[in-house]
Amino acid sequence: MSDSGATITGSRRLGDIAGHLGLRLHGDPAVEIDAVGTLTGAGQRQISFLANPAYRKQLAATRAAAVIVPPEAVGDCPGAALEADEPYAAWARLLEWLHPPRPARPGIDPSAVVDPAARVDDGAEIGPLCHVGPGADVSPGVILGPGSIVGAGAVIGADCRLLGRVFVGDRCRLGRRVIVHPGAVIGADGYGLAMDGGRWRKVAQLGAVRIGDDCEIGANTTIDRGAIDDTVLGVDVRLDNQVQVAHNCEIGDHTAIAGCTGIAGSTRIGRYCMVAGACGIAGHLEICDRAIITGMSAVTNSIHQPGRYGSGIPARPMRAWQRILVRLSQLDRLFGPGAR
Amino acid sequence: MSDSGATITGSRRLGDIAGHLGLRLHGDPAVEIDAVGTLTGAGQRQISFLANPAYRKQLAATRAAAVIVPPEAVGDCPGAALEADEPYAAWARLLEWLHPPRPARPGIDPSAVVDPAARVDDGAEIGPLCHVGPGADVSPGVILGPGSIVGAGAVIGADCRLLGRVFVGDRCRLGRRVIVHPGAVIGADGYGLAMDGGRWRKVAQLGAVRIGDDCEIGANTTIDRGAIDDTVLGVDVRLDNQVQVAHNCEIGDHTAIAGCTGIAGSTRIGRYCMVAGACGIAGHLEICDRAIITGMSAVTNSIHQPGRYGSGIPARPMRAWQRILVRLSQLDRLFGPGAR
Amino acid sequence: MSDSGATITGSRRLGDIAGHLGLRLHGDPAVEIDAVGTLTGAGQRQISFLANPAYRKQLAATRAAAVIVPPEAVGDCPGAALEADEPYAAWARLLEWLHPPRPARPGIDPSAVVDPAARVDDGAEIGPLCHVGPGADVSPGVILGPGSIVGAGAVIGADCRLLGRVFVGDRCRLGRRVIVHPGAVIGADGYGLAMDGGRWRKVAQLGAVRIGDDCEIGANTTIDRGAIDDTVLGVDVRLDNQVQVAHNCEIGDHTAIAGCTGIAGSTRIGRYCMVAGACGIAGHLEICDRAIITGMSAVTNSIHQPGRYGSGIPARPMRAWQRILVRLSQLDRLFGPGAR
Repeated sequence: MSDSGATITGSRRLGDIAGHLGLRLHGDPAVEIDAVGTLTGAGQRQISFLANPAYRKQLAATRAAAVIVPPEAVGDCPGAALEADEPYAAWARLLEWLHPPRPARPGIDPSAVVDPAARVDDGAEIGPLCHVGPGADVSPGVILGPGSIVGAGAVIGADCRLLGRVFVGDRCRLGRRVIVHPGAVIGADGYGLAMDGGRWRKVAQLGAVRIGDDCEIGANTTIDRGAIDDTVLGVDVRLDNQVQVAHNCEIGDHTAIAGCTGIAGSTRIGRYCMVAGACGIAGHLEICDRAIITGMSAVTNSIHQPGRYGSGIPARPMRAWQRILVRLSQLDRLFGPGAR
Repeated sequence: MSDSGATITGSRRLGDIAGHLGLRLHGDPAVEIDAVGTLTGAGQRQISFLANPAYRKQLAATRAAAVIVPPEAVGDCPGAALEADEPYAAWARLLEWLHPPRPARPGIDPSAVVDPAARVDDGAEIGPLCHVGPGADVSPGVILGPGSIVGAGAVIGADCRLLGRVFVGDRCRLGRRVIVHPGAVIGADGYGLAMDGGRWRKVAQLGAVRIGDDCEIGANTTIDRGAIDDTVLGVDVRLDNQVQVAHNCEIGDHTAIAGCTGIAGSTRIGRYCMVAGACGIAGHLEICDRAIITGMSAVTNSIHQPGRYGSGIPARPMRAWQRILVRLSQLDRLFGPGAR
Repeated sequence: MSDSGATITGSRRLGDIAGHLGLRLHGDPAVEIDAVGTLTGAGQRQISFLANPAYRKQLAATRAAAVIVPPEAVGDCPGAALEADEPYAAWARLLEWLHPPRPARPGIDPSAVVDPAARVDDGAEIGPLCHVGPGADVSPGVILGPGSIVGAGAVIGADCRLLGRVFVGDRCRLGRRVIVHPGAVIGADGYGLAMDGGRWRKVAQLGAVRIGDDCEIGANTTIDRGAIDDTVLGVDVRLDNQVQVAHNCEIGDHTAIAGCTGIAGSTRIGRYCMVAGACGIAGHLEICDRAIITGMSAVTNSIHQPGRYGSGIPARPMRAWQRILVRLSQLDRLFGPGAR
């Protein structure tokens, strides 16, 4: 069920690729490369990569003209090898070179609704059916994809790309080169409620959201505005799809959070953390730098030491799992009367 | 707090209903049916069904004029019985007949923005405030509900229904009769990042999403485009709301995935699988045909045998649960020193 | 990384604030207040509050001119104290007074598409790029934020605020003063499928969604329409972001459900329940009034007694957690042969 990779415009000589990436080439520099591909899908005139050792078996069988590989795999390449200490980073740089994101096409689509009191730089692209509110500031190089909404007083930094149907609430601020995928909601009200005489009273959410340079926000991810102060993402924070960041969270530089993870209010996550998918992180916690949370974990206490943490349980056949559940309920009897 | 069911246009004789569905009727074929309803809500001139045995007690008390039931429940119907081996399938066919989805109303709403280089069939309906990008292809019978966005070069197959505010990214392709609910995002970038000198470098996502005929995609569900090759859904794949499908997943024909489940990258799920709600499925796995995953499970290993799998833990009173948590931490002492 | 709070228009004397809130003031009533702030961020002429005892240490160090505190903390305030039995409720009321939500600006934006057969009250505000379908009814005081869609025959009660890019499906009905955050989808089809001869057959979803007065619906939350009868939220129900409510659920008055929780079909949740984040609640259950579900729990059985329930497991260092997982697999051997 696979396609055969992505074709580039024109072609590149392998020697030029090695030179551009600063990699050592084992093979003929004159070979022409037309396209990038996977190890299994690539054919002649295509380049591929090996980063995940799980796919090493595919390397021996590849028909790719060249493969970016770690040093220890150079000898296994049927074709040319580009030796890289960090093959995946080299691959990312190669794609950046061969398939750069398109630049903004400056101008405002006639169907967009830009408030007269908004400031839209002449170098920004405002796509069809976008709305830019009063006092908003859209910087040069920005692309607002179709159906995006930028609230009153919001600031969109230079070269941001909102792919389409993004919502940025009033007064929220994005740094430079922030990428926001469709359906993301930045700056909805935080979930602030006070029980008052038997009914909920809404606590006005007066803060905003501040996002640093080079962040990426996934599709349908939500980041709530702060209650009083702001919700803050540092620089180079990378959120996958359907992540939920509650009010007044702070997420440190270079932290990556995978899909479907939710973070409750006022939790501070350090720098260079990695949170896997579908985790739940309770509110008012401190997570130190370089903490790694494995998938489907419930983080209910602060973390003060770097390292890996988790509480996910691997699924197994239901009969075996149900037996364990029964045993869990009976654990106490093993400990004897009065045991603690 | 219940309504009294859904009224149809005109009425149908019970005999005609039995004939249309190919069911055996126990009762008077001349009875007129005006509406469908639940066992508890239906009254005279209404038809209902029993599929879930949990509701069998309601059958004896129903005031419905007729009920579609499995053979073993025919004797319990106070009114007429329509005997069906598969009562829920019969019910689905009945509703299809009585309440067919409305056909497309061909034409392009004046507020829609259709690129001159898009191809929109004369038999397609483009609703208010939609955007169709250059090179996109919208087939006959398609309904694009209000606010939907179809990217450059995307293909929307015949008779697809995008209910409104759907996003289909560049070059993504939907088969025929695909239903996409509001807020779904098909074709955002996959979550591809390479650490490079202390910062994340984005890995360009060059693939697309391909969806087969007769799939249904729930509200606010996200399906990312592949990194190089495509993310692929087979035919008749049914995703509920808020499902997340990461880049390069492949989901086999007739597989159904319930709400809030997330699937990490490059995992392949077989045909006729059923995944319950709020599961997390790790990346790079193979799940065979007819695997059933129960709710809130974490799937971290490939599955090679059909059957039921799980790791969800039923909630219980907190005092009891906390006692189990304490015992979990103490398990080691039961196994004695040096035990493995 | 903090801002310095939210400034109000003009200023208020502390005595007036105490009077408005009905609180006992310990301090100089003539002090002027310009802004609200956090305990750590507030400075002179600012007011703050203490509700969560976890932040009590911050109280002693605050530079706020005044703090709303519970009676037992009055003596710890460096500045003035406003004594409140329910400090968080008092704070909510203060913000409501100082920062009221803006009223509707009646009128229909020229870019909005309102069907001629819709009824939009003269006192409603229809924002840019909204769509209101035929037969829809939009009441006085309503704000439809940019990009919102109101389906055919839907009813939006007085003073509702749809913040932007909200989807309300055909025939769904919102009570008065309902707040809906961006990306929410109210009234997508329920997930109704019947297996019929080896393929899924869609079960038409004929019900709608009915939402009572004073509810709040979070960003990217989804509430499906009922299969036959309606999905129903009572009054003052508060849903956070990315909550999923399946078809025919009923949620009782004053119940609050935190982010990323999913509720399967036909489950009835009582009044004054509190469900924490990232829970999964199975279908066809009954949850009684005043049940409290802790975070990341899987609720698979009905709950008949008020109180706290849970099954979430706190994350710990992976080595320790993996040891527990091994022990879980070995539990049976502790119970001896033939044990149950």
